[in-house]
Amino acid sequence: MDLVHTIDEVRRAVADARRAGRRVGCVPTMGALHAGHTALIDRARTECDFVVVTIFVNPTQFVAGEDLDAYPRTLDADSTVCEAHGVDLIFAPTNETMYGPDAVTTVTVAKLTDGLCGPHRPGHFAGVTTVVAKLLNIVQPDAAYFGLKDAQQAVVIRQMVADLCMPIEVVVCDTVRDSDGLALSSRNAYLSADQRRQALSLSQALFAAAARIADGERDASKLIAGIRERISAAGPCTIDYVEIVDAESLASLARIETRALIAVAVRIGEARLIDNLVVDADDDRR
Amino acid sequence: MDLVHTIDEVRRAVADARRAGRRVGCVPTMGALHAGHTALIDRARTECDFVVVTIFVNPTQFVAGEDLDAYPRTLDADSTVCEAHGVDLIFAPTNETMYGPDAVTTVTVAKLTDGLCGPHRPGHFAGVTTVVAKLLNIVQPDAAYFGLKDAQQAVVIRQMVADLCMPIEVVVCDTVRDSDGLALSSRNAYLSADQRRQALSLSQALFAAAARIADGERDASKLIAGIRERISAAGPCTIDYVEIVDAESLASLARIETRALIAVAVRIGEARLIDNLVVDADDDRR
Repeated sequence: MDLVHTIDEVRRAVADARRAGRRVGCVPTMGALHAGHTALIDRARTECDFVVVTIFVNPTQFVAGEDLDAYPRTLDADSTVCEAHGVDLIFAPTNETMYGPDAVTTVTVAKLTDGLCGPHRPGHFAGVTTVVAKLLNIVQPDAAYFGLKDAQQAVVIRQMVADLCMPIEVVVCDTVRDSDGLALSSRNAYLSADQRRQALSLSQALFAAAARIADGERDASKLIAGIRERISAAGPCTIDYVEIVDAESLASLARIETRALIAVAVRIGEARLIDNLVVDADDDRR
Repeated sequence: MDLVHTIDEVRRAVADARRAGRRVGCVPTMGALHAGHTALIDRARTECDFVVVTIFVNPTQFVAGEDLDAYPRTLDADSTVCEAHGVDLIFAPTNETMYGPDAVTTVTVAKLTDGLCGPHRPGHFAGVTTVVAKLLNIVQPDAAYFGLKDAQQAVVIRQMVADLCMPIEVVVCDTVRDSDGLALSSRNAYLSADQRRQALSLSQALFAAAARIADGERDASKLIAGIRERISAAGPCTIDYVEIVDAESLASLARIETRALIAVAVRIGEARLIDNLVVDADDDRR
């Protein structure tokens, strides 16, 4: 496995791989790798011959006042994880490599960023789509891997790749959870033991809502009220949103009649946690 | 030469060329090809082994009220021109091929689009950068060719390609002029014989300004006043702007001390004409 920091090194390595007829997979990350990331890497490993992991804590996707400085940076540990999971190349650029002093170009995706995290994190998705466009143009993979934990991000990136005609397959992998149901996130590191217990209310509320849907409930407002109640009852927190939207268009749903995304964002202490479930009203087993 | 309309056909043809080790050049156009375009094609032909010309009258770069409907569409004649100049592939997509019904992604370049044509054509450059990003992602050329006649566009696209880390060389070719000095433009077709004579004032005013600079004039406001006077004296018109800016940053210049772009945009009858000269204060011969 190689760890490189410059765009030229990535391009050379990928060009060599491609010349050898290898399918190239890319897993863009901000590092602090956990089992959610390794699930993406493992999936890329099964589908591709040459796996590139990018590790870059992208400043432009953090809104002012967010946790850019606190975000965990653990490159040595991340390298060990990548090595163990058969990664071929880590690309860990500096801010200066990713953003020249004259950088003025932004990629934005409208509509899909209007709801959910969009209004709560103004500029966040423009930061994500711009840096992902850059990373994908640098690596030029055949396939890129993203986690469903960031469901809106996955939908937004899929749309960007389609709209910009990038010849890349976007693969979205299921959320990985701890055995108690907590969705894995690098930001879970911000939680105290008590807060971590409290945070279980997110996944528990989502699973309870899914159970009600399986039992026939179709009214989104009732389901949302139930989720809010359960999360509020677990302890002091700020609920950014609880929304039920169409899983493709992200349009708000009054009734669960299509494939629906139930998504929540909750601030507990220093951590802003998100979680979601995709449910299909037509599918009894979900 | 092949003329294709779908993205898949382009991808296949370019992939074949690349597999054969050929360098791929792309000349994005809106058709109505004239000697300015063929200069780009000829340059691509000398530097590349496989030349793709895209022909697409991109609706999103026309502002409401502009000449989208009137813009000349001459695909048969354009094909003949391309064939004669050794083009390998024409890509002439429909609007539907370029923009799916759900398209919501935009590429914008800030700062460089603040002046010159930017304020006069709100949304124009976002339309240009978005469609060029798409076309370049479809063709994936080694080099792409643009004319200096659209000087701001060339600077903006060069910056976009750099900022988005597209592995593409942007080649900017000199403006081609008729023997009387008029810069070639598909929009010259809108001019009556009288208007065409009047339109010569643009290039004449620019050349006169360049002569004054060669004689030592460095004051931008004096040069601008001279250009405005000459164009106004030629007949009824609306001057959108006469500006002198740094040729790289497009920042307004009070004095000509760097490589400067002198740019004008003038409406004569139905035609909005632009023209420009790049002058170097240090270079006596320009």
